[in-house]
Amino acid sequence: MKAILIIADGMADVPLKELGAKTPLEVARKPSLNRVAKAGICGIIDVIAPGIPPGSDTAHLALLGYDVMEVYSGRGALEAIGSGINILPNDLAFRCNFATIDREFRVLDRRAGRIRNEDAIKLTASIKETIQKDPPDVGDVLFENTIQHRAILRISGPNLSTMVSDTDPHEPGLKVLQAHALDGSPEAKNTAAMLNKLTQQFHQVLNDHPVNKERKKKSLLPANAILFRGVGQLPEIDPLTLLYGIHSAAIAAIPLVRGVCKTAGMRLISAPGALGTYETDPIAKAKVALQALRAFDFVLIHFKATDLASHDYKPQKKITMIEKVDSMVAHLLDNLDLDETFIIVTADHTTSSIKREHSGEPVPVAIMGPNVRSDDVEEYGERTCAKGGLNRIKGLDLMPILINLLGKAEKAGS
Amino acid sequence: MKAILIIADGMADVPLKELGAKTPLEVARKPSLNRVAKAGICGIIDVIAPGIPPGSDTAHLALLGYDVMEVYSGRGALEAIGSGINILPNDLAFRCNFATIDREFRVLDRRAGRIRNEDAIKLTASIKETIQKDPPDVGDVLFENTIQHRAILRISGPNLSTMVSDTDPHEPGLKVLQAHALDGSPEAKNTAAMLNKLTQQFHQVLNDHPVNKERKKKSLLPANAILFRGVGQLPEIDPLTLLYGIHSAAIAAIPLVRGVCKTAGMRLISAPGALGTYETDPIAKAKVALQALRAFDFVLIHFKATDLASHDYKPQKKITMIEKVDSMVAHLLDNLDLDETFIIVTADHTTSSIKREHSGEPVPVAIMGPNVRSDDVEEYGERTCAKGGLNRIKGLDLMPILINLLGKAEKAGS
Repeated sequence: MKAILIIADGMADVPLKELGAKTPLEVARKPSLNRVAKAGICGIIDVIAPGIPPGSDTAHLALLGYDVMEVYSGRGALEAIGSGINILPNDLAFRCNFATIDREFRVLDRRAGRIRNEDAIKLTASIKETIQKDPPDVGDVLFENTIQHRAILRISGPNLSTMVSDTDPHEPGLKVLQAHALDGSPEAKNTAAMLNKLTQQFHQVLNDHPVNKERKKKSLLPANAILFRGVGQLPEIDPLTLLYGIHSAAIAAIPLVRGVCKTAGMRLISAPGALGTYETDPIAKAKVALQALRAFDFVLIHFKATDLASHDYKPQKKITMIEKVDSMVAHLLDNLDLDETFIIVTADHTTSSIKREHSGEPVPVAIMGPNVRSDDVEEYGERTCAKGGLNRIKGLDLMPILINLLGKAEKAGS
Repeated sequence: MKAILIIADGMADVPLKELGAKTPLEVARKPSLNRVAKAGICGIIDVIAPGIPPGSDTAHLALLGYDVMEVYSGRGALEAIGSGINILPNDLAFRCNFATIDREFRVLDRRAGRIRNEDAIKLTASIKETIQKDPPDVGDVLFENTIQHRAILRISGPNLSTMVSDTDPHEPGLKVLQAHALDGSPEAKNTAAMLNKLTQQFHQVLNDHPVNKERKKKSLLPANAILFRGVGQLPEIDPLTLLYGIHSAAIAAIPLVRGVCKTAGMRLISAPGALGTYETDPIAKAKVALQALRAFDFVLIHFKATDLASHDYKPQKKITMIEKVDSMVAHLLDNLDLDETFIIVTADHTTSSIKREHSGEPVPVAIMGPNVRSDDVEEYGERTCAKGGLNRIKGLDLMPILINLLGKAEKAGS
């Protein structure tokens, strides 16, 4: 028995006036999602807890069966791991942005005009040089750009703490913040001091950098500062193999989700055309998943673009993206051995098109597969699934439910 | 965005034979409650946990988002605070009754014939005198009557403990109990000894008191003893403002609920005609709530009389009281800006007319407001709401769900 879990990022929504008080998911044409709902057992999931808007990292941890309240230790390390940067226990990692600031350190653009990779690579090379020339007194620093304005800072060494505040003010128009210790510990003070020193050091390197001179000539925003945020350490979790005795793989484009999956011991598999953008190719993902299912017991497919459309307040685009998810599921249904495979479709969180943000409403779930207690839900949706046979469960519950279906659950007691 | 939470005390019930196997709520004429259910999302709530009959204090703590198992520390301090008596951390407070006892200390009436306030005030003055003349060796004692036979005893000082038993035998015909230590601690022994001394001291003052001589002449029961019960300390909780960034107010007549709301940092607002009795004026409450909503983000209205009717086994009266709640909700619906306000209607617990007591069945809830995922429930009731889109939640979940709807929920993770 095998299982394939499709997580459509932020697919769930709230009823929208312009859609006749329906959600994008309710409006979308989705024959294959409906087929999963109809043949399967449905329900709603509080991914973290009722009313709590999940992050993408915490949501995926929870849906993979980890108790977020216990194990979550920040975004940075997960995103770093997902970007292919090696992170060891006790390392700190920060998500960083190339940004544009003025002389008073006021942030003009948090993404330096969404700087191209080519420019970010050159600027990163110079940052690496200055770190080598003038390293911090204690510990070891690594800076790596990832995609466009995104980058990672890793700090290793003694006397470090995650109890430090961001330097990213999170709003343009505000000044770059001084990092400060969130508790009184010497470790936190030391880490904050390191960040503040790096802010100055990186700014000096970047401000008069030839790349930025060139950018200004082309009327592009200079990337003359690095903002630090989302400090994290690796969560101390056991891999899925150890917990459940399954071999698992993940197909995901965005580093944060890749990081969670890798930390959970899943093999990361790339799919050509799986981009994490509106242009992503769902059939390419489905094909890679079908292949992966030959070697792995459990394959997770993450689909990002549904979430993007909600943050951008594009309900019609969201509908189109949900229909892409549907086409992906269609391809899976057409090519899977349905007697030997469970198909689970859910979302990692609601993204409210109204709030343009993650929201705390539960997400729908449908599980189709051999001998599931199928219910009378005929359509996949936020409100239809709420009437399903699974009722209302927690994110943390999904994996044990799935493992039980796979026949791999251990009896508690005798 | 604003929210108004209506808590009808003990409104939920069990099906009653004399109502054709329907509950009072199912029989009542309630067009406005039905409107909230129809336009909103419905469900049922285990206010504490499945099967557990909540108290009024624990129920309100839970519905305000506090984990009762963690924070609840007895009734006395909450009732004292709700009666306008100042309670500091570490103070002990007891709910007290003026009672009638015979020479053998047997309780004849636990409420001294529901003694009038005027008499209780005079007796209290004499109790205060004796405390001043003959104070306890250690610590500080305050005694205050509140309404009729009800009173509060506050003890402050070192070496105190809540681990003491009541002196109130809770049944007429039984003797006043000796307080004793519930653990072996010297603090509990000290507190029990204080209570036993106060029982004697107060009895001596009251027994030959002119007020009681006068009462006997009028064939009224003398109030010649004070019974202690429900010891409590203030729960260590953060106010709603700090937890959720909302400004909140409560309209409630009974001290215990007022005490919970005040402890949660809510502003207590009085409504003329809001009495906590069958004669209470629901429209007066609604009007005050509408006014309060201008200044506060969140207003709680507590309605007591539904509970009274169940304790008294008066199903028809309970139906009438539910119809009063409905008229209150009607006035709110007619006068609120429904595009900017969430209306939540629930009960703090089931009160079974059969048991004449709080009971552990869940309570119905309906949430109406902008962009809620309304379901197909058409009628407000214990059994209809069980089919709603919220499914079955816990009391503790209601506040996070509401805070998410208000757009004030913080994301867990990134």
